[in-house]
Amino acid sequence: MTKYTGRKILNDPIYGFITISDTLILEIIEHPYFQRLRRIKQLGLTHYVYPGAMHTRFQHAIGAMHLMEQAVAVLKMKGVTITPEEHQAVLMAILLHDIGHGPFSHALENSIITGTHHEEISALIFDQLNEQFYHHLDLAISIFKNQYPKKFLHQLVASQLDMDRLDYLRRDSFFSGVTEGTVGSERIIKMLNVAENELVAEDKGIYSIEKFVMARRLMYWQVYMHKTVLSAEYLLVKILQRAKELVAEGKYLPASSYLELFLKNPFQRKDLLENPSLVQAFAKLDDFDVVAAVKSWCDVNDYILKTLSNSLINRRLYKVRFMEKPLDAHAMQELKLALRKMFSVTESEWNYFVFQEQVYNHAYNPNIEEIKILYKNSQVKNMSRVSATLGAKVLTEVDYKYFLCFPKELKTIALGVIGEEG
Amino acid sequence: MTKYTGRKILNDPIYGFITISDTLILEIIEHPYFQRLRRIKQLGLTHYVYPGAMHTRFQHAIGAMHLMEQAVAVLKMKGVTITPEEHQAVLMAILLHDIGHGPFSHALENSIITGTHHEEISALIFDQLNEQFYHHLDLAISIFKNQYPKKFLHQLVASQLDMDRLDYLRRDSFFSGVTEGTVGSERIIKMLNVAENELVAEDKGIYSIEKFVMARRLMYWQVYMHKTVLSAEYLLVKILQRAKELVAEGKYLPASSYLELFLKNPFQRKDLLENPSLVQAFAKLDDFDVVAAVKSWCDVNDYILKTLSNSLINRRLYKVRFMEKPLDAHAMQELKLALRKMFSVTESEWNYFVFQEQVYNHAYNPNIEEIKILYKNSQVKNMSRVSATLGAKVLTEVDYKYFLCFPKELKTIALGVIGEEG
Amino acid sequence: MTKYTGRKILNDPIYGFITISDTLILEIIEHPYFQRLRRIKQLGLTHYVYPGAMHTRFQHAIGAMHLMEQAVAVLKMKGVTITPEEHQAVLMAILLHDIGHGPFSHALENSIITGTHHEEISALIFDQLNEQFYHHLDLAISIFKNQYPKKFLHQLVASQLDMDRLDYLRRDSFFSGVTEGTVGSERIIKMLNVAENELVAEDKGIYSIEKFVMARRLMYWQVYMHKTVLSAEYLLVKILQRAKELVAEGKYLPASSYLELFLKNPFQRKDLLENPSLVQAFAKLDDFDVVAAVKSWCDVNDYILKTLSNSLINRRLYKVRFMEKPLDAHAMQELKLALRKMFSVTESEWNYFVFQEQVYNHAYNPNIEEIKILYKNSQVKNMSRVSATLGAKVLTEVDYKYFLCFPKELKTIALGVIGEEG
Amino acid sequence: MTKYTGRKILNDPIYGFITISDTLILEIIEHPYFQRLRRIKQLGLTHYVYPGAMHTRFQHAIGAMHLMEQAVAVLKMKGVTITPEEHQAVLMAILLHDIGHGPFSHALENSIITGTHHEEISALIFDQLNEQFYHHLDLAISIFKNQYPKKFLHQLVASQLDMDRLDYLRRDSFFSGVTEGTVGSERIIKMLNVAENELVAEDKGIYSIEKFVMARRLMYWQVYMHKTVLSAEYLLVKILQRAKELVAEGKYLPASSYLELFLKNPFQRKDLLENPSLVQAFAKLDDFDVVAAVKSWCDVNDYILKTLSNSLINRRLYKVRFMEKPLDAHAMQELKLALRKMFSVTESEWNYFVFQEQVYNHAYNPNIEEIKILYKNSQVKNMSRVSATLGAKVLTEVDYKYFLCFPKELKTIALGVIGEEG
Repeated sequence: MTKYTGRKILNDPIYGFITISDTLILEIIEHPYFQRLRRIKQLGLTHYVYPGAMHTRFQHAIGAMHLMEQAVAVLKMKGVTITPEEHQAVLMAILLHDIGHGPFSHALENSIITGTHHEEISALIFDQLNEQFYHHLDLAISIFKNQYPKKFLHQLVASQLDMDRLDYLRRDSFFSGVTEGTVGSERIIKMLNVAENELVAEDKGIYSIEKFVMARRLMYWQVYMHKTVLSAEYLLVKILQRAKELVAEGKYLPASSYLELFLKNPFQRKDLLENPSLVQAFAKLDDFDVVAAVKSWCDVNDYILKTLSNSLINRRLYKVRFMEKPLDAHAMQELKLALRKMFSVTESEWNYFVFQEQVYNHAYNPNIEEIKILYKNSQVKNMSRVSATLGAKVLTEVDYKYFLCFPKELKTIALGVIGEEG
Repeated sequence: MTKYTGRKILNDPIYGFITISDTLILEIIEHPYFQRLRRIKQLGLTHYVYPGAMHTRFQHAIGAMHLMEQAVAVLKMKGVTITPEEHQAVLMAILLHDIGHGPFSHALENSIITGTHHEEISALIFDQLNEQFYHHLDLAISIFKNQYPKKFLHQLVASQLDMDRLDYLRRDSFFSGVTEGTVGSERIIKMLNVAENELVAEDKGIYSIEKFVMARRLMYWQVYMHKTVLSAEYLLVKILQRAKELVAEGKYLPASSYLELFLKNPFQRKDLLENPSLVQAFAKLDDFDVVAAVKSWCDVNDYILKTLSNSLINRRLYKVRFMEKPLDAHAMQELKLALRKMFSVTESEWNYFVFQEQVYNHAYNPNIEEIKILYKNSQVKNMSRVSATLGAKVLTEVDYKYFLCFPKELKTIALGVIGEEG
Repeated sequence: MTKYTGRKILNDPIYGFITISDTLILEIIEHPYFQRLRRIKQLGLTHYVYPGAMHTRFQHAIGAMHLMEQAVAVLKMKGVTITPEEHQAVLMAILLHDIGHGPFSHALENSIITGTHHEEISALIFDQLNEQFYHHLDLAISIFKNQYPKKFLHQLVASQLDMDRLDYLRRDSFFSGVTEGTVGSERIIKMLNVAENELVAEDKGIYSIEKFVMARRLMYWQVYMHKTVLSAEYLLVKILQRAKELVAEGKYLPASSYLELFLKNPFQRKDLLENPSLVQAFAKLDDFDVVAAVKSWCDVNDYILKTLSNSLINRRLYKVRFMEKPLDAHAMQELKLALRKMFSVTESEWNYFVFQEQVYNHAYNPNIEEIKILYKNSQVKNMSRVSATLGAKVLTEVDYKYFLCFPKELKTIALGVIGEEG
Repeated sequence: MTKYTGRKILNDPIYGFITISDTLILEIIEHPYFQRLRRIKQLGLTHYVYPGAMHTRFQHAIGAMHLMEQAVAVLKMKGVTITPEEHQAVLMAILLHDIGHGPFSHALENSIITGTHHEEISALIFDQLNEQFYHHLDLAISIFKNQYPKKFLHQLVASQLDMDRLDYLRRDSFFSGVTEGTVGSERIIKMLNVAENELVAEDKGIYSIEKFVMARRLMYWQVYMHKTVLSAEYLLVKILQRAKELVAEGKYLPASSYLELFLKNPFQRKDLLENPSLVQAFAKLDDFDVVAAVKSWCDVNDYILKTLSNSLINRRLYKVRFMEKPLDAHAMQELKLALRKMFSVTESEWNYFVFQEQVYNHAYNPNIEEIKILYKNSQVKNMSRVSATLGAKVLTEVDYKYFLCFPKELKTIALGVIGEEG
């Protein structure tokens, strides 16, 4: 009998036991940058609609790495060469693919720092970790940035059939209770292969992949863009916007020191790129900074910020209606007048209470790198060519929806303007 | 504390506890005709591919009734009038909707009695039960046969969105382990409503219904028409065909008395309609008659029957290949010659070993009564009109596949003929 | 990209995909002896109570092998030496551990052949397979018979913590829908280790093991010895007993040739040991022989056999009552008289209708080889010593129950005799 | 077709759809006091060990109410009289049974307010809600406080077989991934009945109840008192203790205004009872106040608070060892000296780093109101009398464990003192 050391076993409600035995990976997981992901919910405010959706980016990153482990095993068994170094690196790449996500990032992507997105920030944090770990993450970064010759390794991390999507669809479905979003990740992984240096799926897996794309589409409309989720997220956007406005006017607002930094300074992409300490500050922000601040703003001396903050904390959300096309200026004016009769808001403030936005859903995009299907005769074809379902124009076109947010008190007027019956 | 009597609680691996409290329904369940369904597997020989698929038509009938109970509760809560008599009748209608299924009916539908199908036999057995239960099944039969004015009740039993499909897709998916076939039956049922006397689904359920249709399509190709399932089923068809041929020639073959009756007499639709005792005989047949006979035919004194029977019992199945189009006469002749060089079969016997067939899958059919969607403004629209996915030409067209069955020994030649590489 | 050959992937509703890549094991699975297990339900007539319990010994054997694969991987990772030959052999040993089970073996263990049990028949069939496979099963047999020096390998196959129990408890629980019988097989396997050549569980797994023993006890009373299951099984025993009696009197009864052989000849243990062809005949029997025979006996010209057979096929079972102690001769006499007033049975026939039996349940037996717990300081202790729960006298004592079977018509009298109120 | 209004359907990952149709209950759920439960995790810091355990008290309260709905339906069906008012009240009672829980209450029960516990605070908040809802909660409060004559209603809310336990065991098991804690809540509820005004379980449910008690015991040691969970919780206790110490010395520490109130003032039970506004302040505290404060204390100018806060946020926890009995003063002195050599802590500060505590687990307590079993002959017996398992001395005795917390750097010395090998 021999003792084994250094291994860690995690218990995941979805996959059961997840064993991690690589020492470097264990050290990355223990790093404060990664531990922070424990304090960032994967789906932000979605739990206001689906109370179970409390899972974190930490869980998702570990889960995606677990699927990667399975994918690597399948590919190796099929004779694909993956060296131990590549194996470790591709695990690290998926583990850290979301490290740049800030709190409530779907909502706040442009409220904290403008002109960038989480992938770019992930790359910056990745680089900082690489420094701290004596450049042992070089290969992982090369895969992550798609600079490594074995392209299929990058595709396992980021493509239309990557381990990221396989995990998040299944995980979001599981915790939200929307069982229809479930994806047969196990089966899809069994079908993976490599042809001409690219990740492909064997042809008998085609129905599973069609269903995976359909599940993604369903999850978009049923969960990610559920109208009440949008309502809560845009409420949070408006709160941050107001807070920045007030801070810019010189008002004091309680906030953690890290959040305060970003409230006071309208940082942009170039600031992040030039200033590593700014990246470090960003990497301290989590859900707790944001929610604690909003809670404290419930008692602040500004009618708008106070009202909106209370609405979010006590879940008194905007009403939301989807529309075929956006309202014209005239209709918006009508709503504005109605609002100003009911609430004491100025000309410049009314769009904190009534506004329209748009969302879209692109379940599968044939214009970027496609999912590829491998046939028995070694032919490789694009998914959109061979799928009866996904070839359909409808699925490959972007699916737009417009929506209007307004206070409950404005319901009758708003529905009238939209043309919907009460 | 009061005792309750007459209630029965069943434990279902899918739904948990199922409570049955209606006395008449309990009596129907106890009737030998219904108990027979315990001895008929829902998916025939599918367990040769998916070993878990041992579930029976008994389980399915009970499960579909359980979903009907939920659907009735939802409709009532939404204000739809369903009298206690109708409630009981629609439960009985779904409970007995499959009572006319014989053993391995996908395979043997035309091997036992020609020119009819299980729905018609269900109606005949339904009538016999009605006699025995003093016409208490009148209303149920009226609903089953779509003769009752409240059309939506029939649609709950038989339509493109009926409780039959909701249960069997979920159940077949569960027991086969093909988790992707899972259907959100609970959610779909919550969305049901009635408009203009027809069963409709509320618009917010549209993604769930699209996914349900997709799941059906996936189950078709992945399970119901899996090539090894087809191989086993057609082997059984050939066995019965040979047995009938031999019996017609006057040879003795061991078989249960009920099976013997149908082997000896090429009954047709009209025989069943004219002869109630024939219906009774049919209602005694189950999987055990068929498999026990095939087992005994493994030692019979006929090369073909013996060979085929052993193949089925010991799972040495035909090889199967799907083809874009059927082989022409010339190609079939080539295979036949090759076969006759290897096996000692006569001119008239060779097609017991090599043959081609076709299958098709119609996940959703817009040419028959469509699934209807109810919008908030009370408009009702056909599914094919409003669904981005199901409107696609591809899904609404019938999906044909041809396939060739042949013995393993003929593989090289057969693949050459088809034009597939080894 | 490289093709892989010879691998087979099975879809299990419980474990998901099961991959089998050993060629010899695949050949054993394809052997008619093993394919027969597809036609033997794991739980016999239990589906009369839990309709989902249709799973087969085939599924269980594959599932137990799957757990063995995991256990071997865990032990190897902990540094236990298991050679490739031992690895293959222990998989074969668990795969074939139940190969000697006949149809409905809980009920019929002593009705088909007397004086032996399924383990012994398994060994005989194992030997025959070994001959056919050119003695490649030598090592597997040595492990199976506990003749191999590495004792822990045998313990993985047969002990109070073997892969057999881990699979069947979980599987029976899953298919019956009695979710409480679920066993944390994954966790328990993670805790396995080897100390002093014996299989042990690490101490932090102790609660899981206690719960596993409790689950076994629960499954005994809730499923395996459910009174309606006992009722159906003893009805089948009585049917076989009557059939043998009639055959011994020279009457003709329809039956498959293999079943007929065992009905006509009261074979005993020594016949099996001396006569390999008898083992072969036994290895052809399955559920279909038995049920098809009972179905045909429903129309036979013997009041008792006909009555009992109809009762089984149409699920009109004996009533059953558990009792603290067996009824005395006087009480049984009273029942007998009552019976004979209602049914036209002779003196010698009445115990086909009224009889008492006993069952017992030994969830954990400290008198045979115990489950052993390994502590961090390398100490090994017996489970009954260290478990707060299992040390309890109650659990380690055999739990007896007596029960009485009688026809429904005798209910009032029977309850009176037992002393139970209606 | 009729629209229904006011109903709300929640999607629960465990139970599926939960329908809430009572208007008053919907209003209570929308109240800020109840919405606060969305921000309090059910299991505090347990997610440091089981990352999935992010579920909230909000989910648990709704889930327990859902089980209550089922229990009421079962009892009514068995003829137990429960009026519509009682039905509504018992739902409200279970919904609000945990309303008094503060953040991380297992850890902080005595750190925020001393001398009281969450049940008492629940009662105070309950009273405030009753005021706000015009005394419509009178009956619910009467049931909650066990002042209502129909005692079984209280027992459904709070007893050794209440809906609280049935939900939390299942829920904690589900989200932690410790599947062995799963409880057959559905089956147990089916077995409930009322006898002599008390809640009882019918005798055939006895194995399920034994298993429920065993599951509770397992969950205690495997989850609730997992040594790493204890380590994290006691770290938080020490942080709050230090923070209060510093505040008492007049130091400024960042904190939300509500948390600050409780840091500054050592409130006791009587303060809460006398001061309704204190209850209101308490009812604003949630996880976000605590974690945000600890995060900000990572940069504070106090060695101890800063060190401990960083340890918690970045998950660098104490090492923990369970011990048979507490260490004596001599051993503790040895540890203290070793500590002070490594860390610059004063005489009075060392027990922030090294300390011992005790925990205990009482899976079933026969000394308080017992679970009662109802037999067919209407006899009612105490569980501890009739259960083979639970009657065992071991289970009914309190199970104590002592443990030592210490920094990683002290490991060798600590294990030496305890007498455990490295």
